[in-house]
Amino acid sequence: MNTVSFRLPPAEFQFRAKRLLDHVKRQQLSGAVLFDNFHITYFTGFAFIPTERPICFAMNADGERVLFVPRLEVEHAQAEAQVERVESYVEYPDHPHPMKLFAEILKRLEIRDKVGADNDGYPWILGYQGESLSSLTGAQIVNVNPFVEHQMAIKSDAELALIRESCKWGNLAHRLLQKYTRVGANEVEVSKRASIEATLTMLDTLGHLYRSQSMFSDGPEAGYRGQIGRNAAIPHALTTNAIFMPGDVLVTGANAPLWGYNSELERTMIIGAASAEQKKFFDHMVALQDTALNAIKPGAKCRDVDRAVHAYFDQHDLMPYWRHHSGHAIGLRYHEGPFLDLGDDTMIEPGIVFTVEPGLYAPNLGGFRHSDTVVVTQDGIEALTYYPRDLASLTIQ
Amino acid sequence: MNTVSFRLPPAEFQFRAKRLLDHVKRQQLSGAVLFDNFHITYFTGFAFIPTERPICFAMNADGERVLFVPRLEVEHAQAEAQVERVESYVEYPDHPHPMKLFAEILKRLEIRDKVGADNDGYPWILGYQGESLSSLTGAQIVNVNPFVEHQMAIKSDAELALIRESCKWGNLAHRLLQKYTRVGANEVEVSKRASIEATLTMLDTLGHLYRSQSMFSDGPEAGYRGQIGRNAAIPHALTTNAIFMPGDVLVTGANAPLWGYNSELERTMIIGAASAEQKKFFDHMVALQDTALNAIKPGAKCRDVDRAVHAYFDQHDLMPYWRHHSGHAIGLRYHEGPFLDLGDDTMIEPGIVFTVEPGLYAPNLGGFRHSDTVVVTQDGIEALTYYPRDLASLTIQ
Repeated sequence: MNTVSFRLPPAEFQFRAKRLLDHVKRQQLSGAVLFDNFHITYFTGFAFIPTERPICFAMNADGERVLFVPRLEVEHAQAEAQVERVESYVEYPDHPHPMKLFAEILKRLEIRDKVGADNDGYPWILGYQGESLSSLTGAQIVNVNPFVEHQMAIKSDAELALIRESCKWGNLAHRLLQKYTRVGANEVEVSKRASIEATLTMLDTLGHLYRSQSMFSDGPEAGYRGQIGRNAAIPHALTTNAIFMPGDVLVTGANAPLWGYNSELERTMIIGAASAEQKKFFDHMVALQDTALNAIKPGAKCRDVDRAVHAYFDQHDLMPYWRHHSGHAIGLRYHEGPFLDLGDDTMIEPGIVFTVEPGLYAPNLGGFRHSDTVVVTQDGIEALTYYPRDLASLTIQ
Repeated sequence: MNTVSFRLPPAEFQFRAKRLLDHVKRQQLSGAVLFDNFHITYFTGFAFIPTERPICFAMNADGERVLFVPRLEVEHAQAEAQVERVESYVEYPDHPHPMKLFAEILKRLEIRDKVGADNDGYPWILGYQGESLSSLTGAQIVNVNPFVEHQMAIKSDAELALIRESCKWGNLAHRLLQKYTRVGANEVEVSKRASIEATLTMLDTLGHLYRSQSMFSDGPEAGYRGQIGRNAAIPHALTTNAIFMPGDVLVTGANAPLWGYNSELERTMIIGAASAEQKKFFDHMVALQDTALNAIKPGAKCRDVDRAVHAYFDQHDLMPYWRHHSGHAIGLRYHEGPFLDLGDDTMIEPGIVFTVEPGLYAPNLGGFRHSDTVVVTQDGIEALTYYPRDLASLTIQ
């Protein structure tokens, strides 16, 4: 009997490693070294909290994979990581520096001369300091980020199942957020209440099928992040503990990490009947999102989608209200490449999951942005989020 | 009339900038460039969500400060950042690449030839790709991290006031966590309930005096992060949605970000009467923490504290249960340097805030770790956290 599970199967990680190995061979590299925690999670299945203690992945041209971790993470990595071997150092900072030991491992793996890497050494995180990979090894470093990012962008069926499920629980958190939002309430109170209720319901529903594997949240969350009233004109605001007032324009956000995978659902809501000006901006925003949704198709380029959106902005004299591109890919990271941006000429392919979210921001009125998560199919897109988009459904009485 | 406020005053940022300028001059640099979001927050007061869109800080040898942000963050940065000028680019990825524009700003600021920087370019975050600072400018890059980290480590009175206040609200969240933890409950449920209750109480108490300015949480949080029962033997576990069982050893964590500043409170709790073995490990853990607390004093080195702890481990044959160093500094980041580690020869100075947290981890028994936040004073330390540390107080009936 097969057991239902959302956990990605070992075969998925073998396939990913095989793809990386193919790249190593094609590029005539001696191996690949990864330092980014999301890259490591992607290739090994080991999710962890990145700190000042380096965690590094190495694969040589024979496909032998080593994960290098601090003593503190040994049992954790052994239990979770799909690699041939977990090796460890005592602690950071320590003598010898962990990177010296890692350089020895690379030597043993015959990773030298020409090495693929996502960064020239472990990056400065939380005060980490150390030598670069090139100076430690004397090797020529070849940037593998474009390959890794492209591979991560094309989602497998198992990854799509996780993102689909994530959308459902984000939807619940958002529904509760809307339900509890009322004049006089505090944004944090409403957000926390909706998030905890959605989380407990999800835990009761999915039971052991669920793990968040996110360092940001252990369940669905929905909130405003300060995008309330005039402050909603700041696209990446931080919470100011605002109290909801009549006439406020609100921009929401909801997500539910599931085995590390994310989705994005954002809506513009208005407290009380929309003013003529608010309605005008709301309608343009929905038309802009439709424009972007219609432009996403296999064979088009990412920039084409943003161009179509820019054309709408121009045509309706809306450029003073433009602030950001039309969307981004999403997966293990809540933002990732490629980007629906004039400057991104990546070809759109089936399996890429995008957020679609052109926005309008008017300083004295607020922000207007819906974001939906969609997957590119053989002949267009399938929307994975399904929350109502129309003004009537998003008006809070 | 002065108004009570926790917000750091402009003078604090002027002082910080002055210290950085002194360093630039002392090192005969043409300026300093910062890419780390925490470094930028520290020197400008602008807290933001780091994404694939570069945000960069530059100061020239005349002390002129420029913050370079995407269009999306212009109003936000103008409202918050203590700099002479906010400059902006349209979007990432875009033509020209934002870093090309930043290179032009550096040229105008006469930042060239020999440039202090915390990293050789904007790091790969969420799929960002771009050229290094050295290749863009042709300048020699001098690493300013040791200086910046040292300056950030020595807390001002205003910073200490924030961390003190943070400890109080972490204490409340932890008290509620302990109160709601019972056999049969789910760790996430208990953690969310304690966290929301502490958050709402804090918002009602502090009102507009409070902002979290953290991208991780909008109020006090307390939880287990999976460190429950046998899984507590994994120091950096992630949540597994465990159900509490009789005899479980639990390792907690509580924090409350306050205008970006953090504290750390962790306790080992046991459900039901401790077994003889559990009591033995608990007592050793408390003795280890006392050993570390007694060893922290101005003039000693960080490594001396860890040496004293290692001596206790050796003396009691406990090394099989050792997993990590004795603590780390804390402030805008929940971990930062210096580290209470054999490999860290930083001199301990008044104003440094440390977590003190040697731990014992026994695979079939669980983890044992208390963490307290302390500040180094002129002649020793002052503990800022004050939650009970004894077994009786931490036993859940």
